[in-house]
Amino acid sequence: MITNIQRLESIPATSVEITTGFWGERQATNRQRTIPAIYRQLQLTGRLDAWDLNKKRERPKRHPVVHMFWDSDTGKWIEAVGHSLRTHPDPALEKQVDDVVSLIQKAQQPDGYLNTWFTAVDPANRWRNLRDWHEMYNAGHLIEGAVAYYQATGKRELLDVLSRYADHIDSRFGREDGKKRGYDGHPEIELALVKLYRETGETRYLNLSKYFIDERGQQPLYFDLEARERGEDPADFWAQTYRYCQAHEPIRDQMTATGHAVRACYLYAGVADIALEIGDQTLLDTSRRLWDDLTQHQMYVTGGLGPAHSNEGFTFAYDLPNETAYAETCASIALVFWAHRMFHIDPDARYIDIMERALYNGVMSGVSYEGEHFFYANPLSSYPNVNPHEHFSGITSDRYYRRTEWFYCPCCPPNLARLVASINSYFYTVGGDTLYAHLYNPNRARVNVGGSAVQIEQQTGYPWDGDVHFTIQSDQPATFTLALRVPGWCRDFQVTVNGTRLSEPVMNGYVRLRRTWSNGDTVTLSLAMPVERIAPHPMIRQDAGCIALQRGPVVYCLEEADNWPQLANVAIPRDARLTPEVDSSLFGGVGVITGDAVRVEPASWSNNLYEPQSTLQYANTPLIFKAIPYCFWANREPGEMRVWMRES
Amino acid sequence: MITNIQRLESIPATSVEITTGFWGERQATNRQRTIPAIYRQLQLTGRLDAWDLNKKRERPKRHPVVHMFWDSDTGKWIEAVGHSLRTHPDPALEKQVDDVVSLIQKAQQPDGYLNTWFTAVDPANRWRNLRDWHEMYNAGHLIEGAVAYYQATGKRELLDVLSRYADHIDSRFGREDGKKRGYDGHPEIELALVKLYRETGETRYLNLSKYFIDERGQQPLYFDLEARERGEDPADFWAQTYRYCQAHEPIRDQMTATGHAVRACYLYAGVADIALEIGDQTLLDTSRRLWDDLTQHQMYVTGGLGPAHSNEGFTFAYDLPNETAYAETCASIALVFWAHRMFHIDPDARYIDIMERALYNGVMSGVSYEGEHFFYANPLSSYPNVNPHEHFSGITSDRYYRRTEWFYCPCCPPNLARLVASINSYFYTVGGDTLYAHLYNPNRARVNVGGSAVQIEQQTGYPWDGDVHFTIQSDQPATFTLALRVPGWCRDFQVTVNGTRLSEPVMNGYVRLRRTWSNGDTVTLSLAMPVERIAPHPMIRQDAGCIALQRGPVVYCLEEADNWPQLANVAIPRDARLTPEVDSSLFGGVGVITGDAVRVEPASWSNNLYEPQSTLQYANTPLIFKAIPYCFWANREPGEMRVWMRES
Repeated sequence: MITNIQRLESIPATSVEITTGFWGERQATNRQRTIPAIYRQLQLTGRLDAWDLNKKRERPKRHPVVHMFWDSDTGKWIEAVGHSLRTHPDPALEKQVDDVVSLIQKAQQPDGYLNTWFTAVDPANRWRNLRDWHEMYNAGHLIEGAVAYYQATGKRELLDVLSRYADHIDSRFGREDGKKRGYDGHPEIELALVKLYRETGETRYLNLSKYFIDERGQQPLYFDLEARERGEDPADFWAQTYRYCQAHEPIRDQMTATGHAVRACYLYAGVADIALEIGDQTLLDTSRRLWDDLTQHQMYVTGGLGPAHSNEGFTFAYDLPNETAYAETCASIALVFWAHRMFHIDPDARYIDIMERALYNGVMSGVSYEGEHFFYANPLSSYPNVNPHEHFSGITSDRYYRRTEWFYCPCCPPNLARLVASINSYFYTVGGDTLYAHLYNPNRARVNVGGSAVQIEQQTGYPWDGDVHFTIQSDQPATFTLALRVPGWCRDFQVTVNGTRLSEPVMNGYVRLRRTWSNGDTVTLSLAMPVERIAPHPMIRQDAGCIALQRGPVVYCLEEADNWPQLANVAIPRDARLTPEVDSSLFGGVGVITGDAVRVEPASWSNNLYEPQSTLQYANTPLIFKAIPYCFWANREPGEMRVWMRES
Repeated sequence: MITNIQRLESIPATSVEITTGFWGERQATNRQRTIPAIYRQLQLTGRLDAWDLNKKRERPKRHPVVHMFWDSDTGKWIEAVGHSLRTHPDPALEKQVDDVVSLIQKAQQPDGYLNTWFTAVDPANRWRNLRDWHEMYNAGHLIEGAVAYYQATGKRELLDVLSRYADHIDSRFGREDGKKRGYDGHPEIELALVKLYRETGETRYLNLSKYFIDERGQQPLYFDLEARERGEDPADFWAQTYRYCQAHEPIRDQMTATGHAVRACYLYAGVADIALEIGDQTLLDTSRRLWDDLTQHQMYVTGGLGPAHSNEGFTFAYDLPNETAYAETCASIALVFWAHRMFHIDPDARYIDIMERALYNGVMSGVSYEGEHFFYANPLSSYPNVNPHEHFSGITSDRYYRRTEWFYCPCCPPNLARLVASINSYFYTVGGDTLYAHLYNPNRARVNVGGSAVQIEQQTGYPWDGDVHFTIQSDQPATFTLALRVPGWCRDFQVTVNGTRLSEPVMNGYVRLRRTWSNGDTVTLSLAMPVERIAPHPMIRQDAGCIALQRGPVVYCLEEADNWPQLANVAIPRDARLTPEVDSSLFGGVGVITGDAVRVEPASWSNNLYEPQSTLQYANTPLIFKAIPYCFWANREPGEMRVWMRES
């Protein structure tokens, strides 16, 4: 198994041209609206100015800790720009990012240290609180930005800066004499260092990443030690437990996904990277064990993760409240990162199924259709006035949960931008003489597989339509296996090659077409895509008596804009006719589902909150409901929303 | 109307002897277990020692503000003891409370000030933060304790101490020159001062209470002014808005019940007191308006108040989550206080209906059957591991929500003890020549009504049975109206006098029997008490598709102990037979409801969290369910609980 692992390689983004379709449109919006909007916010909020250490920077009165994360926002924006420039060169944008890179270069200290807060505002506290202050998290995002910028532009400046910073970190943290045995409270640098290693070939970065993963949670706990060095009682840690940051015990001993969901999945992605790079069997086992726990017990149907606002994370198995779901956009993004890595450990479509679920639902709900407003939390139902952060205000006028332009802690917008900009790299993987096609969307890819350079093109209306047409172009006949993913949601499919239907078996979620391909060969994969009534696991108490509608990978929801308010009273009969169609008037043309439902409400009601049922007449008004893709909710008139709908 | 008001008087506790039955048993437990248990906790936690100002008292490292409320716990315990001694003299207990009173006497400062924290620990901050530091709240509870202690023992010492403290407060706060225009962040002193006025006849205390109510929320806002005096920015108030403490605008302008639920209802009870004492029409209107808003939009079926943990209080109309309900025991207690006062403004049973709903459900759920464990929050459904304060710990083993012996902020246990000890005073009211009987439970009462001294006795199995038998004893024939409450939950009743059925009309919720009563006259009120399937208002999204079971005033719940886990999957058919009976093996004999239900679960399930419904076989296993009174939940094996049950 381990030897297989290292032969799997994603086709790089530059080799995959996304032409149109869902991802084509979302990438255009990301380029034209989201990336510029984030830049404006970086400017407006002082995050770019902060790189100029000569400019006076105030310590904010409230929540200064968030200001300690500022550098990461720039890092993610650079990464988004880097990915975008790789597939869509843009000299003006390149100039803009070059200028930011120059600022960063100048902010690096002679010893390699690079952090605006702990240089300009609070130098005495450098490296004094890894648990809370995110220095390595910032470093990780800057490293990822540097790698993407270098890959896009060939300019090494930022990569060199971050290599020096990584050297600095390596000189201070580790098991060797004179080093501190620290690791970051917010994992992220682990996976970033693996990227830096892969780009530079410098094994010290791989080893440093491995050290961070191995040392985490070892006794004596570093976060206890550094708290005492600060004169604090470790028991005063605001989050009460190092489970919050997955540092309560060594990763190899951890049995369940726990704590802050973004930290968890960044860490697990890093664990998968190291497992894959060094072929460590217990890390591989840990990765699979945590994956199964998370996806079998703690994941929303949208691919959202983390039910609780209190810890921005996990609670316990089957606890998946809808209205109060946190399901941070970043957590679903981190799940995509982890899933993609898991496939490269275990080439099985089950990982890609989850990745796709997160992408089309819990990730893309994080950004508005027009691309300039964002969700941090992605609840699965929404009612006026239900923002749990607003209870204090006791607002009695109607208020709705809506996307906003920015956040005080704006981790999600640039995270989303970098993922959308890099979605190309999630489409294909080559392993030996097998070409895996994971995602379906119009695209053209140049790949080397089984010793041949071929081009493969997809034409499809996916995810609104299940037919995917492939054309192979190759100067010479090419022998390889084309492994087409048959998604877990699909229960019936056909595949034809040059019009001839084949009955190849599905192995690990891929139908494998092995042959010598000639120029112009065509393949059609037809995935049956009926509307599915999805039932929740019987232990998910919050969904009991409800179903969700899913078609293909897309989860649908009811919105008040289409169905009037009091959506909790709308019930869908077990035998209701459910009709999918593409509504060309909606968001450039997206799938919708209509069907028969009933509105279960008394015909009249008194002023009383509670009445004997026998005194009421129930109306059960018939209703034609319309459900839209969850990821597009909250783009029209404000109102209620529900993913899980009552059955009648 | 206003002139009527002042003729209504509750029959004092000393005149009502509760003999047996629900309240007889609960009072015995309160006397024998709860009051001693609270005393032990006051000792153990240092609250009694704190009254000895010579003893060294440490400033706690965390949450010192709670230590500022310590005096109130003693005050409430004294009040509970006072009420108990009135009906059940107990020399040993009286000695115990006398000793505590001596301690308190010695703690009073020469200027009348009386607060252990701001004398022994932080004298520099006396009266510097009325918004958060609860000095007047403590004073109010000590005043209530002093009045009850005096009424029970005839000993004036504590009443004199508290009168001097009230004088001190009166000398510092008010609209006169040289006084500060303050009022407490946590209302309570308002209603306490009215009690002190009624006991002492000193109108300054009434006027001070009226001043607190009138001044609250006036511009410029006092909490702003005092914050600035402390060098703080008022905008830094942790609760973000003075709605939290009902001080955002004058009470006469307030349209909805808002903020911290206990503060709200203590304030509203004080407003009702002042409205009643001075006959202020706009305060009467305010009381009715806030009452209607609260009971028609923001009250749980259990009489619980305040859905949100974040502000321990209200959010917005029809927002009544069950599992995460805060529904603090103190809030339901405060609702009882307010409801009782509202009746004395508007003699209408609708207030007593709510009072009774709170008493039998959301109040009594606050204490365990054995009397030594308490709930702070009273959720309407409960699942393992769902304490929202424990998300950080990410505990994965089973954990259940259970009562505990004490709390860091233990406002609820002594509050409950004082209410249970004083329940006698909630049974009857005399208004002119009308004797109102509000509550039903075996008891004997001596009353003066219409110029005659009579004794009235009740025999009943209420709340498990709807028949109530009254016997009148009177040395001479007595002419008065016996007004028997026909509860709002009752839709059919009969009343007989000396065996003859009458058909008197119900007016304002009371059937009024006017006659000249002779010694030995008997009255039987037979309240039809079927099991009711209670439907929620269609705007309460959290209860959609569910019913609650209620019989008489008692709300029932499903517990795992009787019904196995996964209660969310239990559905009760619309036509299910529902059988009430008294289970003599349970909690000394309480009503239970059994009936037919179905368990709606797939026959088998994969590891997946979500499956297409069409691939599942549903078992719909029949089940005989058993529901127990909500107030007795969590007294057996730990497990799930639900009030709102799915319908099928």
